[in-house]
Amino acid sequence: MQKASRLKDPPSLSLEEARRAILAHVAPLAGQRIPLARALGRVAARSLKSTSPKPSFDQSTRDGYCLADIPAEFAEYPEISLPLAGEIAAGDRGGDELLPGQAFRIMTGAPVPRGCSRVLPFEVCREQEGRVVLPAAELRRREKFIRRRGSDLAAGRVLVRKGQVLAADHLLMLVENGYASVEVYRRPAVEVLCTGSELVSPGGRPGAGQKISGNGILLSALVATMGGTCSGTAAVPDQVDELVAVLGERIAARPQMIITTGGMGPGKFDLVQEVFARLGGRTIYSRLRMRPGRSTLFGLVDDIPFFGLPGPPPAVRLLFHELVAPALRRLAGMRRPVPPAVPARLQGEIRLARAGRLNLKAGVARLERGQLVARVAGRTDAVNAILLLAANRKHFRTGDRVMVHLLAQGL
Amino acid sequence: MQKASRLKDPPSLSLEEARRAILAHVAPLAGQRIPLARALGRVAARSLKSTSPKPSFDQSTRDGYCLADIPAEFAEYPEISLPLAGEIAAGDRGGDELLPGQAFRIMTGAPVPRGCSRVLPFEVCREQEGRVVLPAAELRRREKFIRRRGSDLAAGRVLVRKGQVLAADHLLMLVENGYASVEVYRRPAVEVLCTGSELVSPGGRPGAGQKISGNGILLSALVATMGGTCSGTAAVPDQVDELVAVLGERIAARPQMIITTGGMGPGKFDLVQEVFARLGGRTIYSRLRMRPGRSTLFGLVDDIPFFGLPGPPPAVRLLFHELVAPALRRLAGMRRPVPPAVPARLQGEIRLARAGRLNLKAGVARLERGQLVARVAGRTDAVNAILLLAANRKHFRTGDRVMVHLLAQGL
Repeated sequence: MQKASRLKDPPSLSLEEARRAILAHVAPLAGQRIPLARALGRVAARSLKSTSPKPSFDQSTRDGYCLADIPAEFAEYPEISLPLAGEIAAGDRGGDELLPGQAFRIMTGAPVPRGCSRVLPFEVCREQEGRVVLPAAELRRREKFIRRRGSDLAAGRVLVRKGQVLAADHLLMLVENGYASVEVYRRPAVEVLCTGSELVSPGGRPGAGQKISGNGILLSALVATMGGTCSGTAAVPDQVDELVAVLGERIAARPQMIITTGGMGPGKFDLVQEVFARLGGRTIYSRLRMRPGRSTLFGLVDDIPFFGLPGPPPAVRLLFHELVAPALRRLAGMRRPVPPAVPARLQGEIRLARAGRLNLKAGVARLERGQLVARVAGRTDAVNAILLLAANRKHFRTGDRVMVHLLAQGL
Repeated sequence: MQKASRLKDPPSLSLEEARRAILAHVAPLAGQRIPLARALGRVAARSLKSTSPKPSFDQSTRDGYCLADIPAEFAEYPEISLPLAGEIAAGDRGGDELLPGQAFRIMTGAPVPRGCSRVLPFEVCREQEGRVVLPAAELRRREKFIRRRGSDLAAGRVLVRKGQVLAADHLLMLVENGYASVEVYRRPAVEVLCTGSELVSPGGRPGAGQKISGNGILLSALVATMGGTCSGTAAVPDQVDELVAVLGERIAARPQMIITTGGMGPGKFDLVQEVFARLGGRTIYSRLRMRPGRSTLFGLVDDIPFFGLPGPPPAVRLLFHELVAPALRRLAGMRRPVPPAVPARLQGEIRLARAGRLNLKAGVARLERGQLVARVAGRTDAVNAILLLAANRKHFRTGDRVMVHLLAQGL
């Protein structure tokens, strides 16, 4: 028996080097035009500007009465009374003219007539026999209750930048500016393959020495959280020929990314590297200077980005968030594929077996009196942050400042 | 002409009183069982526990060699050599027995045999003519490279609590514990009706005095962001008879919530209160002690929660997040219908026209050196926080501490 022959090792990369190498090989997908009503959560494939001033006409901000300038001498009276000469409802076409000494009744949102210099709200006035009685004090108020054309937003302002994820507020701005459809990037379609002869498909009953394969549902949910779609997940035994056959089929279907789990590592049983080589894959890295990361591969097979992740789900989750997610964001056209790390105060102590490498830990972050705090996630926690524990330390104390990546689902 | 007759005013409520009143009239919807693979983002309708210890058997954490205890006298030699008596792959059924003085080759995740007390990783050993050579120094290491049955998670631990939103991590835990389906709360179906004779449907061209109705797409997207579905949005002119007819039809379809926009306010043109009364609605409040909130209604019509929101989209957004969203969360079964307000440092100055009432402002929050900061949202910002400006002040300065509600989409 011989130690299995090893491929010549490509250099071992840091997290930042690995990300740069990945992003250098991934480009945004093509755009597609979709109705605005279906665009929530999609990524804008071009910048979009306001097309008209908002509001597009001078309008009343209250139900009330509109009037022309009142000659100064009337200010001496406690109140004045004007004849009601008309009524303007929201939706009226405008074009009315208000003469000095008249008042019109007007509704919130209705166009103010020519000659109108202010609106007085309904509740400070009273109507009496076809006239409206206005307290003079109200005529001296600074607020005119008129929204002027273009006062909210001029035409030609950028509403949405290329690469922005469309939120409810963007859809509102776009619809108000006459957009009925929008060009967005296509969603990345990802193929997931879980290797492992010890794995039983979800729903099956594991026998002795077996366990249920969880990476398929984990990755498919993580991909969906990032706005991608999972074109398929399969669990395949640890057999080179079978893996080559299954992967070959999937590659032919041209997914935008392939992720495998398991079958990575230095031992003779490991096979993803061999399968990858048999498929003509080009390795970009196969070893990282961080934990986890000893056994993980990135490369291209038929120009398709290919991530070989290890088997244990905790490592899959960490490497997904730190390496796969930036690639998905880039494919999806997002502006910032790598969200910035932010400092947090550590809650609880962390002792690592070894220093010397960046250690990633699944974490839970939250705000405490306006400050970000984070701790290592427990077994049953949903992870919302990745702790990036600096390479030079083995011991981190409560209150220490650590850098974290906040995940998309928020605090 | 007479001032329109007014209904006797129900009391004016504070934000907290309004929320309590709303939540007292809204109950979680029924549950439904769905496949686990479709449960991302849904709300668990019951607590779910781990069903088996994890891992379910003692297993190797490395590709390597497993051995029994080595008698102490061997520690004097720099290395020892043991015959390779077998090989255990991941997925093997277990039941092997290792005798003292033997080694088995073992794969990551494979069951360790009876009699095995530690695993030595592949990379620190070497194979030679059917034997494995082990450095004695490695035998003194504390780490055994064995994950013991139940060491990650015992059986009977709560994995997901009733009312939790299911994230990718929860799906992983559930699938590993043999769950193939899960009971979740139904999604709230919401009917949206936008009133306003000045409104043109999305995609149409507004004439003079008209504008495109944006509240439909805004509310439908906000409802979707909260996990609900919008069963329909319609724009209806400001006509009592037509509104009564359209709403009557919608009520008959039994949505779980109705939201109207526009047609609210003290003036004679306002009509939602009249329509609501004609439909037999029961008003819970029709006036709040905050801004916006002067003109907004909550009640029940045929036991369906009914929100009458004002017309301007900025007010719609604020009232949605502060009042409608808690009702949707309660309908959807979420644990905390009202997320806590958190303190943030204000960026920029705010001057209000009047103090005396709580003022809500749309805001943008982010972390700056681990601290939460917030500012008033600009015209083209996507809002991710609501600023709750205390009633006793008109002037807020940069650096002042203000309370904010962070919205679901994260920082």
